[in-house]
Amino acid sequence: MKVSSVIGLVVAIAGLFLGATMEGSNPMAILNPSAMLIVLGGTLGAVIMGTSFDSIKAIPKLYMKAFNSEPPDLNAKVVELVGYAESARRDGLLALDEVTATIEDPYTKKGLQLVVDGTDPDLVADILEAENDAMRKRHAAAVQPFDKAGGYAPTMGIIGTVFGLVHVLSNLSQPETLGPSISAAFIATLLGISTANIVYLPIAARLKQLSQEELHFRSMTLEGILAIQAGDNPRVVQEKLTAYIPPSERLTEEEAAEAAKAQKEAA
Amino acid sequence: MKVSSVIGLVVAIAGLFLGATMEGSNPMAILNPSAMLIVLGGTLGAVIMGTSFDSIKAIPKLYMKAFNSEPPDLNAKVVELVGYAESARRDGLLALDEVTATIEDPYTKKGLQLVVDGTDPDLVADILEAENDAMRKRHAAAVQPFDKAGGYAPTMGIIGTVFGLVHVLSNLSQPETLGPSISAAFIATLLGISTANIVYLPIAARLKQLSQEELHFRSMTLEGILAIQAGDNPRVVQEKLTAYIPPSERLTEEEAAEAAKAQKEAA
Amino acid sequence: MKVSSVIGLVVAIAGLFLGATMEGSNPMAILNPSAMLIVLGGTLGAVIMGTSFDSIKAIPKLYMKAFNSEPPDLNAKVVELVGYAESARRDGLLALDEVTATIEDPYTKKGLQLVVDGTDPDLVADILEAENDAMRKRHAAAVQPFDKAGGYAPTMGIIGTVFGLVHVLSNLSQPETLGPSISAAFIATLLGISTANIVYLPIAARLKQLSQEELHFRSMTLEGILAIQAGDNPRVVQEKLTAYIPPSERLTEEEAAEAAKAQKEAA
Amino acid sequence: MKVSSVIGLVVAIAGLFLGATMEGSNPMAILNPSAMLIVLGGTLGAVIMGTSFDSIKAIPKLYMKAFNSEPPDLNAKVVELVGYAESARRDGLLALDEVTATIEDPYTKKGLQLVVDGTDPDLVADILEAENDAMRKRHAAAVQPFDKAGGYAPTMGIIGTVFGLVHVLSNLSQPETLGPSISAAFIATLLGISTANIVYLPIAARLKQLSQEELHFRSMTLEGILAIQAGDNPRVVQEKLTAYIPPSERLTEEEAAEAAKAQKEAA
Amino acid sequence: MKVSSVIGLVVAIAGLFLGATMEGSNPMAILNPSAMLIVLGGTLGAVIMGTSFDSIKAIPKLYMKAFNSEPPDLNAKVVELVGYAESARRDGLLALDEVTATIEDPYTKKGLQLVVDGTDPDLVADILEAENDAMRKRHAAAVQPFDKAGGYAPTMGIIGTVFGLVHVLSNLSQPETLGPSISAAFIATLLGISTANIVYLPIAARLKQLSQEELHFRSMTLEGILAIQAGDNPRVVQEKLTAYIPPSERLTEEEAAEAAKAQKEAA
Repeated sequence: MKVSSVIGLVVAIAGLFLGATMEGSNPMAILNPSAMLIVLGGTLGAVIMGTSFDSIKAIPKLYMKAFNSEPPDLNAKVVELVGYAESARRDGLLALDEVTATIEDPYTKKGLQLVVDGTDPDLVADILEAENDAMRKRHAAAVQPFDKAGGYAPTMGIIGTVFGLVHVLSNLSQPETLGPSISAAFIATLLGISTANIVYLPIAARLKQLSQEELHFRSMTLEGILAIQAGDNPRVVQEKLTAYIPPSERLTEEEAAEAAKAQKEAA
Repeated sequence: MKVSSVIGLVVAIAGLFLGATMEGSNPMAILNPSAMLIVLGGTLGAVIMGTSFDSIKAIPKLYMKAFNSEPPDLNAKVVELVGYAESARRDGLLALDEVTATIEDPYTKKGLQLVVDGTDPDLVADILEAENDAMRKRHAAAVQPFDKAGGYAPTMGIIGTVFGLVHVLSNLSQPETLGPSISAAFIATLLGISTANIVYLPIAARLKQLSQEELHFRSMTLEGILAIQAGDNPRVVQEKLTAYIPPSERLTEEEAAEAAKAQKEAA
Repeated sequence: MKVSSVIGLVVAIAGLFLGATMEGSNPMAILNPSAMLIVLGGTLGAVIMGTSFDSIKAIPKLYMKAFNSEPPDLNAKVVELVGYAESARRDGLLALDEVTATIEDPYTKKGLQLVVDGTDPDLVADILEAENDAMRKRHAAAVQPFDKAGGYAPTMGIIGTVFGLVHVLSNLSQPETLGPSISAAFIATLLGISTANIVYLPIAARLKQLSQEELHFRSMTLEGILAIQAGDNPRVVQEKLTAYIPPSERLTEEEAAEAAKAQKEAA
Repeated sequence: MKVSSVIGLVVAIAGLFLGATMEGSNPMAILNPSAMLIVLGGTLGAVIMGTSFDSIKAIPKLYMKAFNSEPPDLNAKVVELVGYAESARRDGLLALDEVTATIEDPYTKKGLQLVVDGTDPDLVADILEAENDAMRKRHAAAVQPFDKAGGYAPTMGIIGTVFGLVHVLSNLSQPETLGPSISAAFIATLLGISTANIVYLPIAARLKQLSQEELHFRSMTLEGILAIQAGDNPRVVQEKLTAYIPPSERLTEEEAAEAAKAQKEAA
Repeated sequence: MKVSSVIGLVVAIAGLFLGATMEGSNPMAILNPSAMLIVLGGTLGAVIMGTSFDSIKAIPKLYMKAFNSEPPDLNAKVVELVGYAESARRDGLLALDEVTATIEDPYTKKGLQLVVDGTDPDLVADILEAENDAMRKRHAAAVQPFDKAGGYAPTMGIIGTVFGLVHVLSNLSQPETLGPSISAAFIATLLGISTANIVYLPIAARLKQLSQEELHFRSMTLEGILAIQAGDNPRVVQEKLTAYIPPSERLTEEEAAEAAKAQKEAA
């Protein structure tokens, strides 16, 4: 997954540059300073106005995230949670106390800690769902600047082009510069549409997808934690959690047994 | 159904090609290499960036699915489920154990297995609904690349055309090539709109419809399984399930009796 | 209501034809064979691809429905249901058995039959709501081809026009045919926008409205059937059901009494 | 509020007319008969087709409503309902019987009548919510023709313009009439966009806002009636209802006391 | 946060002005009186028509809010509420009576007052949720004029431009003024798109974000008040409320302890 966003960016830019070059255009013409001022500056300003400074400061981190993050490993999590369910059945919920300290994922850790502390099941669900809900809102807020930029950039491009055309049309005395001037005016449109469709919108789509994957992962984890607290049979826990995994990616019984064995050895 | 998508594609392409030819155009002009690089490359790149590599790899399979899948047979499923309800009423839920092993549809099989295992009805509903919910999300994610491509392709076409126009306008010295150059620039727009409206968007619509049909089929199956577990009268089961079938496709009483008889003989 | 859709179509077409003729245009120019091939063929093909063949076969029937159907008579239904409530109060629910056989509306019939059979109230509600839900989905699916056609037609028109322009611009040697050729190219756009806005989209809107009216009618019927089963006082039944009727269309007390009398005589 | 819609219309039309006149245009040019036939006729026809005749007949009444209606007085209603709560607490629910006959607002009247009749609280809530729900649907249906007209008008304008351009371009023999002919063709676009944005869409927005205000008013009334039936302390009733009023419009304690006194005297 | 909206506005305007100046345009050309009449007057009028006069009068206050408001301090609120939870656990709910009088935030004050008065927990939740719901609706209504203006402004710009073009084209006798006249006509489009994308839409986005932040803040406060009333352990209250804070902004245990100490000293 890690590589796919980079490949996507390379494919898109290569397609556009090669195609434009074959047409005889110079794709570097897009790097026109006045068009860049209008389109990039206008978009940035409109986005800052409409969100907060914090959202803007988070952008570089989100870029890295869009290009870097691995999909969560649902199968490993099922094996892990079924393992906890077995311990809990065998030795009681308190037996999880020791294990909890070693869990890395803060969400699972918080959930099991609450279970070990003997918190009421409804309260555990409430607290963990509040975490998920807050994360969902946080992610939605983080995608906003990209979504908004994808909306503003083409309009800023049009503003730049119309500005140019207004200027050209009000000075028709030198017809020989007419073509190049109109041509220059259209660079702004080109820049606005290109940045929106090759940068802002695909990144927004990617971040939304990452958010959904993480929420799905967390829903599964929550279901598992509640099942452990309810003292469900480990087989039932497995049955419940497997529903969250696409059939084509589900482990066979042997693979699952092997993974469970590997986990026990690691513990 | 199987054939209809192919017919649709043929009708659309025939309409466009014949119409364009009658106008005197050469519809093959659309296969311009620079336009194809910009439009197909740009769209592919933007889609890869915004989704994951896995989604891209699933595309050929989804194409086949869009052109191949049969609508689920609701009537047959009702007859099947009413049959199980009768066995369960007559011989108890455990009598279904033997039958369960021979069921092909994994969803019905999983559901009845849970029932036979004596799982709590709420838990059966939870697990099967989680399956449906996960399937719905999976399908929605699978449609995304087509939906997104349908959005990106026309804009990539416009980018290609504006690139071309910028190039043409900045070199007005040879007026005799002006027309053909502008003409060539518009090929990109043509390619972008055509692929979006004849390929990407109709396929996205088709996949969404297939997903809805499957979810409807599964909701009916779930309702039936829960009714069997609750020990409902087979007539009530039939009444409940028939509500899921469009009135015009419902079997008459005789057809239903015949179908039930045929199923018993097959068993 | 029946006539209104026809009047709408006549008004729209008359407006456009008269207006175009006054402008000096020949509105028949829109019946250009190549434009029709591209726009009608392309739209039809894209719609077939994205839905199923069954949906396409249902189109002529839906056309008739859009132009023909009467609004459901809410007041008559209230009088009818209050009448059943009175019989049920007076002679018990079983007294409805005889009446049920004579009811024409299959939905009311099914509902009362379930009540007479002594089905559990929750189950009656479940079955009748499942019917409504299935009808809602069925209607939504039926509107799809018109909605989609309304979206595809203008783009097919633009494809036809750009095809034409590409052809014209690549052959500028005969400037005297330039105007008429461009003019012909725009016919496709004209045809696409016109069919979408005068045929497809208004019919889709009409079918959606009919669907809402029928669902509203059925919700009222369902509420009445459940109230009858619960043994509600006929006055309360009337109070409950009247809420579904717009105040301006509600019967006065005298009209209601008269209608009730007329119904009893008819029975 | 009453005057604001009229002021809005005057401001919009004055802005456009003065601006166009300053540019040197004759804003009356928009009253071109062929453009009006195409745009107004086409829009009217498409709207009639897509809704019902009743909806069309209701339009003049809705125009008056958009320009005339007063915002509901939330504070007065709170004082009124708290007054009923006090009577009910002091003298029992039956004491409201006499008062109920004098209430003008049919919704409050119906609600209190149900309370006085000793109807079950859940049933009171059901019936009053059904009223609100039906009103919400009715309002949504009433806004439809304006919303739809706002969508059709610009497209009808484009149809008129393209018709004109097709005509102009196919007869290029008299170049001196080219400008005026194209100019005339654009009148249709102008008319379509202007009517949509200055008439149809603002009225649709206004009606939606009126509907929301009325629903908010009714939700508050419903909450108050249920609180009275539940025998809530008048202070709690006031606390509950005040939440529905924007803080900046809430009465101070003195104003509330004065209003309550005035109401008692009036009674 | 306070400064960010101002910075955004400056960046956007600077980008556009510098870019346009570099292109050789005079960005002040946008201040064309006739274009301003059409675009600003038309937009203002359409907005007034579609909302109420009160909404219009609230606009300057909302501008200030968009440029001025601080994000709510979630951490401080958690410390405050946990402090109340401790008092309540130690000295009983009535001990909060004294504290309540000194609370500045009216929402927290109202909530705790209800708790101290011994109101039923469900009723407390109902009243406070009604407050939030009413605030949400109020905020949504407040954003409307900006959202609507962002939609009307570009269309008013197009109306202005088409008006201009109609005028120019109908008087082609003086070809030397053709360019400047068309140029002037496009100023209206420029003004419409610019005001929409640099003023109206970003401010609407900002107000929506502020509304969401405030609702999130209030949901947390409500959760805390209900937990205090339920007599939850202060640690559980903290656990519950921390879920509302983004992990990166959560206080460490020491910071939280210090903040709690500081609060006690202040009291």
